Amino acid sequence: MPASSSAPASSPALPGLSHRQSEFSFSVGTRLTETCSPSDAQVDANGGAFLGRTGTITTPHGTIQTPAFIAVGTKATVKAVLPESIAELGAQAVLANAYHLYLQPGPEILDAAGGLGAFMNWSGPTFTDSGGFQVMSLGSGFKKVIDMKNVDSSGPDDAVAPGKERLAHIDDDGVWFKSHLNGDRHRFSPEISMQVQHQIGADIMFAFDELTTLQNSRAYQEESLERTRLWALRCLTEHASLTASRVGKPYQALFGVIQGAQYEDLRRKACQDLGAMPFDGYGIGGALEKENLGTIVRWCNEELPEDKPRHLLGISEPDDIFTAIENGADTFDCVSPTRVARNSAFYTPFGRFNLSGARYKTDFGPLQDGCDCYTCVNYSRAYIHHLFKAKEMISATLISIHNERFVVKMVDDARLAIESGDFFEFKAETLGRYYS
Amino acid sequence: MPASSSAPASSPALPGLSHRQSEFSFSVGTRLTETCSPSDAQVDANGGAFLGRTGTITTPHGTIQTPAFIAVGTKATVKAVLPESIAELGAQAVLANAYHLYLQPGPEILDAAGGLGAFMNWSGPTFTDSGGFQVMSLGSGFKKVIDMKNVDSSGPDDAVAPGKERLAHIDDDGVWFKSHLNGDRHRFSPEISMQVQHQIGADIMFAFDELTTLQNSRAYQEESLERTRLWALRCLTEHASLTASRVGKPYQALFGVIQGAQYEDLRRKACQDLGAMPFDGYGIGGALEKENLGTIVRWCNEELPEDKPRHLLGISEPDDIFTAIENGADTFDCVSPTRVARNSAFYTPFGRFNLSGARYKTDFGPLQDGCDCYTCVNYSRAYIHHLFKAKEMISATLISIHNERFVVKMVDDARLAIESGDFFEFKAETLGRYYS
Repeated sequence: MPASSSAPASSPALPGLSHRQSEFSFSVGTRLTETCSPSDAQVDANGGAFLGRTGTITTPHGTIQTPAFIAVGTKATVKAVLPESIAELGAQAVLANAYHLYLQPGPEILDAAGGLGAFMNWSGPTFTDSGGFQVMSLGSGFKKVIDMKNVDSSGPDDAVAPGKERLAHIDDDGVWFKSHLNGDRHRFSPEISMQVQHQIGADIMFAFDELTTLQNSRAYQEESLERTRLWALRCLTEHASLTASRVGKPYQALFGVIQGAQYEDLRRKACQDLGAMPFDGYGIGGALEKENLGTIVRWCNEELPEDKPRHLLGISEPDDIFTAIENGADTFDCVSPTRVARNSAFYTPFGRFNLSGARYKTDFGPLQDGCDCYTCVNYSRAYIHHLFKAKEMISATLISIHNERFVVKMVDDARLAIESGDFFEFKAETLGRYYS
Repeated sequence: MPASSSAPASSPALPGLSHRQSEFSFSVGTRLTETCSPSDAQVDANGGAFLGRTGTITTPHGTIQTPAFIAVGTKATVKAVLPESIAELGAQAVLANAYHLYLQPGPEILDAAGGLGAFMNWSGPTFTDSGGFQVMSLGSGFKKVIDMKNVDSSGPDDAVAPGKERLAHIDDDGVWFKSHLNGDRHRFSPEISMQVQHQIGADIMFAFDELTTLQNSRAYQEESLERTRLWALRCLTEHASLTASRVGKPYQALFGVIQGAQYEDLRRKACQDLGAMPFDGYGIGGALEKENLGTIVRWCNEELPEDKPRHLLGISEPDDIFTAIENGADTFDCVSPTRVARNSAFYTPFGRFNLSGARYKTDFGPLQDGCDCYTCVNYSRAYIHHLFKAKEMISATLISIHNERFVVKMVDDARLAIESGDFFEFKAETLGRYYS
């Protein structure tokens, strides 16, 4: 085991930050290949490497054992679920969104409340996404994500949702955008994003980056990547200044965000560029299609400093989770578990099902046999089916608790499988059953 | 203290029921006038008597210390609140509705689940309203209650909501009505209501009665009251038969429902008639205006057997609660605490306020200073204001928890005040502050 693997790796200090950096650290625990022996065919299929590992992220509000699935609480609440339930189901951290909280209630409110965690009664670690993704996806008329197959383009570099007006305009300094709530015009820049995120006060923040799509031209991707690189530097500078000035606040870690779409050279360059900067960790973001997910994560993690945590933004599908884990991603987040719950879809080891089906009306079993979540221990499919049909709110609560537990536990079990040496068996069994 | 006051008064046995009646009982604890000394003026103002008392209702699923406010869970869920929270906030029992559960999911589902409590994961005592009120109010095009001041009447005995079709048609045998969900035609009768309520399986059921309005003619009120009397007898007969045939189920108590609108002679007659029948307790229902509430409750409780519990249907306003308690009502229920919560209204000792006001945006105090509820201990007005503005579901959850706690505690405190002898001081202080 390399000497660095279990010692906490403190981030390179920025001026004025050294005494606080100790509040954030990451240590690698077990590397996948130390305990597991993939076959040659598996190694070949994965591009020659498995970068997966376990680790521990230490924040001022507690630790996160990685790999870990982070519950999404966009507007400072995991939709329909009380924070006690989130903790009880085993979620280790919550991720909120700087764009949404900037518009509503405003970051000064969270600052006055003592930060995101205190505001929402969540005592554990917190993340905020920078808002860059949301500014650009919502600002281009897309709801939450840019559908790569359904865009109106006036040119190759101008993806807008069908029938929608472009509400986000990007220049080298930042982005003008209109609020999706009331159409008010706002400005985000690297500095503003950092100011907003410092006020929100999460333990882990993301640098402000530009979102591109797979439709953008190669030339635009290059131009955009350079803009994101320059923005990353500006984020670090503003972050250092804010950290120095906001005396007495817990240290907030800053993760750089890797873009580069489907281009290997761009992804590797972005990782080299940002990897050399004093970020506390990295987010892997941007345009990627499901079939390239593992490859792109591998390109990134082959370049990124190994002693920094890596967050892959926006995934929760079981196959994506395993692919990301084995390629070295440490944390993940996704709105899906609660979003599909509100439409009565629930996860099981045998796939995802929809509880609105008439056959569940008299099904007195739990959502998932043997599941240890509050919902499965106490409620039947028949009851939650009734709640959904009757439009009663706690149907969303109960299914969300189960779905979050399902994904959190799957990732926890993957971590244990890395430690115990049966990751590949666990993956094959889990995915074989889920997609059967 | 009269000899009967603290001994459990078992209900007069129906054929075949005697061995089970022991599962339901009521005992009077302290009479208001045993510990408190109202002034002559207070006695005069209250018609010469204060019938208030404390007591204990024993059911197969636990006891209820009375006076008690019963949380409403119409469709087998207290809207937006998990049952753990309901128990934690001190609610002693939950009341569901036979009309709603008959239509959705159907009473056979609750029966198969092991009854209402098991179905909804509530281990304490449960009530079901008979559905009579809902059949007739919803069937007349009103939403939840018949607005006494806003009716279209083709004649004095035909109150229908403006612009709505009459969907309920009453005859001596029962009621034809259309489902408010899909327009399907259904029939309720005393026998059907008892069958439905036995399948639902609550500890306390209500007899099927006819709802009248204050607009109905005196002649119609008399006719209706006689119909309700005959229905009460049919409910008892069907209840006895079902109790005998449903071997092994916990005993379900049956409460007769007192109608008679604003007429003293009709109310007293109804109480004498139903009071002589072997009901386990009584519900006081029907048309009454706020200013007559105490008087009507007093008329009823002067006639009803003193050793039976009395439930006043559908109140939660502080002044109504005190009026009802001092006139001898033991339990109350109301949808208001959760309904107003969904519109962001919250109770405080100084009245009800609406959290949507802009001044709450930066108000980091609890909904109510000193309140011991989960919401007040953990969340600020600013946070819940944000959740409401952001249309996040847990705003309803958090305000509902507080509002239910507020009313439950007020009634609990009134019970303690009867025991400690300062009921009238407590009432004056509470109402003086609330309506200041």
